[in-house]
Formats: sequence, structure tokens, C-alpha cells
Amino acid sequence: MSTEIVAAMRAIVGDSGVLEPAEISKRSAGMWRFDTLRGAALVRPSSTAQVAEVMRWCHARGISVVTHGGLTGLVHGADAQPDDVILSLERMRAIEAIDPLQRTATVQAGVVLQTLQEEVDKHDLAFPLDLGARGTATLGGNAATNAGGNRVIRYGMTRDMVLGVEVVLADGTIVSSLNQLIKNNTGYDLKHLFIGSEGTLGIITRLVLRLREKPRATNMAFAGVDSFDALAQLLKHMDRSLGGTLSAFEVMWRSFYQLVTTPPAKGRPPVTSDHPYYVLIESQGADQDLDSQRFNAAMESALEAGLIADAAIAQSADDCHAFWALRDDVGQVMQGGMPVVFDISLPIAAMERYANTLRETLAAEISEHKLWIFGHLGDGNLHVVVQVKPMEYLALRPKVEALVYGPLAECNGSVSAEHGIGLEKKPYLHLSRSSAELAVMKTLKTALDPKGLLNPGKIF
Amino acid sequence: MSTEIVAAMRAIVGDSGVLEPAEISKRSAGMWRFDTLRGAALVRPSSTAQVAEVMRWCHARGISVVTHGGLTGLVHGADAQPDDVILSLERMRAIEAIDPLQRTATVQAGVVLQTLQEEVDKHDLAFPLDLGARGTATLGGNAATNAGGNRVIRYGMTRDMVLGVEVVLADGTIVSSLNQLIKNNTGYDLKHLFIGSEGTLGIITRLVLRLREKPRATNMAFAGVDSFDALAQLLKHMDRSLGGTLSAFEVMWRSFYQLVTTPPAKGRPPVTSDHPYYVLIESQGADQDLDSQRFNAAMESALEAGLIADAAIAQSADDCHAFWALRDDVGQVMQGGMPVVFDISLPIAAMERYANTLRETLAAEISEHKLWIFGHLGDGNLHVVVQVKPMEYLALRPKVEALVYGPLAECNGSVSAEHGIGLEKKPYLHLSRSSAELAVMKTLKTALDPKGLLNPGKIF
Repeated sequence: MSTEIVAAMRAIVGDSGVLEPAEISKRSAGMWRFDTLRGAALVRPSSTAQVAEVMRWCHARGISVVTHGGLTGLVHGADAQPDDVILSLERMRAIEAIDPLQRTATVQAGVVLQTLQEEVDKHDLAFPLDLGARGTATLGGNAATNAGGNRVIRYGMTRDMVLGVEVVLADGTIVSSLNQLIKNNTGYDLKHLFIGSEGTLGIITRLVLRLREKPRATNMAFAGVDSFDALAQLLKHMDRSLGGTLSAFEVMWRSFYQLVTTPPAKGRPPVTSDHPYYVLIESQGADQDLDSQRFNAAMESALEAGLIADAAIAQSADDCHAFWALRDDVGQVMQGGMPVVFDISLPIAAMERYANTLRETLAAEISEHKLWIFGHLGDGNLHVVVQVKPMEYLALRPKVEALVYGPLAECNGSVSAEHGIGLEKKPYLHLSRSSAELAVMKTLKTALDPKGLLNPGKIF
Repeated sequence: MSTEIVAAMRAIVGDSGVLEPAEISKRSAGMWRFDTLRGAALVRPSSTAQVAEVMRWCHARGISVVTHGGLTGLVHGADAQPDDVILSLERMRAIEAIDPLQRTATVQAGVVLQTLQEEVDKHDLAFPLDLGARGTATLGGNAATNAGGNRVIRYGMTRDMVLGVEVVLADGTIVSSLNQLIKNNTGYDLKHLFIGSEGTLGIITRLVLRLREKPRATNMAFAGVDSFDALAQLLKHMDRSLGGTLSAFEVMWRSFYQLVTTPPAKGRPPVTSDHPYYVLIESQGADQDLDSQRFNAAMESALEAGLIADAAIAQSADDCHAFWALRDDVGQVMQGGMPVVFDISLPIAAMERYANTLRETLAAEISEHKLWIFGHLGDGNLHVVVQVKPMEYLALRPKVEALVYGPLAECNGSVSAEHGIGLEKKPYLHLSRSSAELAVMKTLKTALDPKGLLNPGKIF
């Protein structure tokens, strides 16, 4: 079968556009993965028309298709079976247009996030989506998974930055919905159906993205905070005091702060290490002088009100980089072996109790482990990292998942704030979604992909 | 049949919750309407469970249901036929919760926009959706139509302010998706399917809305601008210079400015009346003193760069009200009879040519008429108002529509920026949506409402 598929794919995209199974198996399965890809063929179309032709051929024969972007996903959302066709958008990397007046970019889905960031910067514009995998993740993948990142509090998720999409459906129909208008109430807003659907409803081939004027000024601080109540009030205080310019509010529980400020980590502590919470605060604005006055006044009044115990205010771009480097030094959690990484969200009012409960239940159930918590407090999104002894990883992982996910249902939390469901979180989706919600999702899947060929088995 | 329906509805919601046809016909069909309602029964459930029971009964019998909120829509999106059941959410007016920490409000769909605005204000919070019909429009209606309004440039459309919805489907299934988290990537984001679907896919019964910290400072200016190029550059300049705090950029073509600053209108011109364009600029921030410095500096540099010809800067809250009153005095277009009102959007680069072409074609085709243009430039949304002689209104309306809508397809414009399609714009939807897009919309409609009972005939 694979031989026939490879031949058919070559007829569509040309010989060099197709990899056979032996070549496929030389490619990594993705970031933080130790396995390699598998599939009946890996096809690399260079146009939407070719994507459509691939889908028509596969649809007629009932062959499943798994779409690949930059493979930086963390939930096994792009895993393929040996009989699947892998459709990689790596040859669709054109930035087709940047319109400084309309403040939009039109791109093919395979464009790498960082490439677009750098290109729009030349026009004094910004594409505000930003995340650690920026150098590899593609915009099509960002949209398919509704990627979040560090500045959601100000600019929203990928969903909020996409104005239009072009999609190829399971049967090869091209739906070009390349809207470039902020306001467009002409019927159902189809893009939201495909964004965040993890490749199960259609293949995003092109996008129109909303750009912003490039911020001219950045202010940052790093603070130690002595109680969770103070932390929650600090978020409100800074948001209110910065008048719409708060662009990051990244919290670290003490153990994570200590991890990234203690050798072998390269980071040095900007403030003392004895507070229960730490927070990186960033404001992006227009006027360095006036913005700094406002930012410093907000920090001062927070100190006076007892919301922060200790703070360092960035005095230079280097300081800003150093603060962000602490937050981004997530790789330190790999010390001592592969940890179990979670990406949950829950209401702010429930967070402290949740974290304390988790600490207690882990201590009761797993004698030797490490727990780090950090994340985007303003968005309710916490990254929880649990490390057990490497030899016990496989045996204990289900228990760790149960302890982390279990209490979320009760507080209306989410088992995935931004990473998505993929294969990894399927068993836990019911904790965050009711059977009625799941039934509607399945109705949509059946309506758009009745043969179930697009990224089969993912999400539900 | 109506008698049987009325009896069944009374059994569900109680006697006082149902109006018979004779009572229904005493109610106005809505804002700016001269006709009255009609329907087999008007039922006013007081809970989601009652809404579900109404739908189950109607679904079993194939009876169509038209949902009513505040009836402030402008596109005949809630018109009912004599055999339809009208389901009004007017008894579901509870603000169930306001959470100042999570910055969310949970409301029933019948809550009036202004009621929520005033209630959250007491908590030093803001719900930033704002539009002229705020005193009557309901939040369920705002969501069902994805209402826009004056501050979309800063806060987005209603879609962007809704975190979760509870919906009753055509068959009476309750889908409670009352997410309160900014980040939640657990499967398809169902709310976006129902938001903006104009009551055709489900009945929104409850919502979780995202609130913001209440702005502490407002700065405003009113400027005359001598060219469209300058206007477009001014938008970029102000957006960049205000660093994320620009909250309105409302443009008026000269004829509209003159209309609202000349008796019988009560407004007085803040600047001279001889510029081709006028713009109201608003910034919402945190610190009146620092924000004013920044705002004034941005206006000064715009003047120096030749982007504005003349400007008045608001010195008081009264000045701000007076500026907004000009923009909101849309009712002046009723002088001389009912006009044809449009709500289009198009790329900024195409606007000047579009407006000039429209002026010319109207002059060539309709000897006696008036044309006013104003709108939300930052969102690409223009309100075009054309008035013909009252006796010729019905005869000329199709020609006016053709002249206004016709050129939009070529410049990727939209026949509805924010009002929606309803019945009024159905004939023109194909100008903004391809047949492939319409086919997907119909697939969704069929999947969720196979009997076609919800708000039949609307959109497509």
C-alpha cells in the first residue's frame, strides 16, 4: 500500500516532495521526543491546490492524514500511525504580504513564528504571539493548536490574532476565508471552528494575521511576594495602574525560582530567595520616560500597600533579558530526569488551595519527588512540573496525572490551558468538558469529516 | 394550532409567562420599526430548564422558534412568522455573579447591557462593550449577533469578551459551557460557534463575560483632517504613540460632521467645518496626569507632522460628553425621512476610493439624495447612510443597495461589519462569502439543527 501511496503523492507534488517510510523514520517525532516519525508517506505540498489534491486522493481511498507543522507540540497531537499519510507544510513558507496600513500579514501555514516576528519588525509592526518554540513552531501549527504563550494577558491567544484562514477540508474542498477585517459579521465565523481543532477538522493552509504597532517602550520588574492574596491583589493593582499596558504577569512558586537561580542554572536571583511567590511584571508602551514614571509609581504604591515584599526594577534591556531568561529557563526541570509536565488553568481564587493540596497529596503518595509550579497568573494558567525517580517514571506517571488533574473538575479548571489535548490528555478531557459538550464536538467532527480521516484519534 | 401551542407553553412556564397572538400584536417589532410582532405564542421562560422544555416540545412537533432579546437589531434578524413560537428571554435577567478577582460576570441572557455596565462599575470593573442601544439590548442578543460598538479597536467585539456560554440546542439539549478561564484548550471552542450565529444554531441562555479593571483616566480630542492619507497615518501615529491605550478612533466624513453640528442638531462644532474628514480620538488609561501628557504630546507631534489640520482637546468630562454626543447623534439622519443605513467594512487602503466612487455613482443614478459616511476607522467599519425622497424610498432602495454593496466584493469588503445578516442582507451575503464558505455554514446548520427550527430563514 505504501508504494502505491508514495507513487500517487509523487504524481501530485513531484518526486522530491515525498519521503518514503525508510526516510520518514530518520526524522525526529518532535521537540522533547526520543522517538522518530512513521507513516506510509510524508508529502510536502507547495501550494493549497496540491494540499487539496492530496486530500481528494486520500479521501477517495479512506486514507488518514496527519498534518505536520513545526512538531513543537507537547501532547502527541501530531503522532501518525504507519498507515497514515503525513502532510507536512514545510514547503509552504511564503510570507505573501505585509500591509502596514491595514496591519495584517498574509502567510502560508508553514511560515515559522520567529520568521514572521522578524519580518514585521522591519515595518515597525509586531506580531505579539510569542513562545519558547518560536524558532521552530509554524503559524499554521500555532493556529491549529490555538497557541498561547507569554503575553496572552495583553494580546490574547493565537485565536485572537487570526483574522482569516484558508482551509482544505477532508474531502479536498478549499475553503478560502481570508478575511482581513477586524469586524465582519457576515454569517458564521468559520475560522474559530478550525483554530484550536488540532488538525481534526481541516488543514489550515494560509492565514491572515492581525499585526500591532511595535511597542516603543518596555518596563519590567521582578518581585518577591509573601502571600497568595497579595499576589492576586497585585495583579489587579498593576493592571489597573498600568492602564492597559500590562503585557506579562508571570508567577513562580518558590521552588521554581530557586531552581532557576541556583547553579547549574545560570540565572542569578534578582531578589532574595525566601518569599513563597515571585512575579515577573512587564509593561509595553509608547514612551519610555512617561511609562517608566507610571510603572515605578505603580510598583511603589504596591510596596506601600504591602502587596510586594521586595522588588528589582529593570534598569536596562539587559536586565529585561535576564528577568525573562529566568522565566524561560524551563529546561532546568530536566535536571534529574524527564519530568511530567502539566499545563492546567483554574480560577485564581482556587489556585492557592489547589497548589497546597497538590503538595500534600504528592507528599503522601510519592515518597521521592520534586514539584515546581509557575505560569501565567493573569490568564489562570499554571505549569505544574512533577519529577519522580527516572526508574519510576512510567509506573508513577498515571498516579501523578490523577493527583494533578483530579481536583480540577471541582474548581472548574481545565486540563489544558494552552497545549491542547492530542493523544496525551484524552483520558482526562471529561474532567473539563461535559458529555453534552463532547457530543457537540463529535457532531461537528462528523459533519466536517464523516470518514474520520483528519488526524484520527486525537482530542476524543 | 396556536391555541394548542399557547396551552402547551403555559404548562411549561405558567400562565403569565405566555402571550397569545392578540397580545403579541400589541408589541413593537423593535427599534426603528413601525410594525408589530406576530407569532403563534410568545413564551417567556424564567430558567434554562424551561427554555429546554420549550425546545423539546417544539422540536417534537416541528415548530419553529425565534429567540428575542432586546429587539434592537437592525437587520430583521428576529422577525417571526405567524406560526412561529417567539421565545423571549426577558424574564431571565439575573446577574448571577460578579467575581472581582477572576474579573468575570456570570449572567442570564436577558440582562440588559447597561444594567451590567452599571453593576460592574460598583466593583471598580468595566464591561467594555458599549453601543447606542445599551439601555435595551441584552447580553444574550449582543452575543448572538456578536455586537461591536465604539471601542472594538481596544477591546474587540462581543466575541472577544465572552468566556463561556450555556446554550439550548434545537432539540432541547442543554450544553453548559460556562468556562471562566482566559486559556482553555480542551477541545473545540464551542462558544464561537454560537456567538454571531444570530439564533440559528442554539439559544444562548447564560454567559460568562470577561471584565476589565475600570479605566481611571480618559483623554479625548476632536480633529479636522485634510486628506484620507493623513487620516490613515494618524490612526497609526496615535495607536503607536498611545501605547495600547487608544480606545476609539471615530471618523466622520464632512457631510456627517456638518449634519450633527448644524441646527436642528444640538451639537456645536469643536473645530471649523471646512475639512474633508473629522476624527474623535479617545484614550483610556490609568493616570490622568501622565496620560494627558502623553496624549497631548501625541496630538502635538501629529499636528507638526501635518496629519491633523485643526484640533480641540477635551479639557473636562463635559467636553468628552460633547464629543461623544456628536458621534452618537446618528438620529439626525432621520431628518427628511427614513434613510437606508449600511454597516460595511473594507480595508483602509480601499476606503477613500470606495467613498468617492459611491458619491459619484449615487450622483449619476439618483438625482436627489443625501449621503453621510462615518464610522470606526480603526476597525475598517463604515456606516454609510443614504437618504432619498421619502416617496421614492421603496422604489430606490434596491438601487441604493446595489451601489453601496456592489463595489465591496472587489476590495474584499464585508456587507455587514457588525449588524449581522438577518433577513435584510441575505441577498448580498454572496458578495462577502464564497460558495465554499456558505456550504460549510449550511453543513453546520444542518448538523446542529437538522429540522431547521431555530430562527428559520435568517442569514442564508
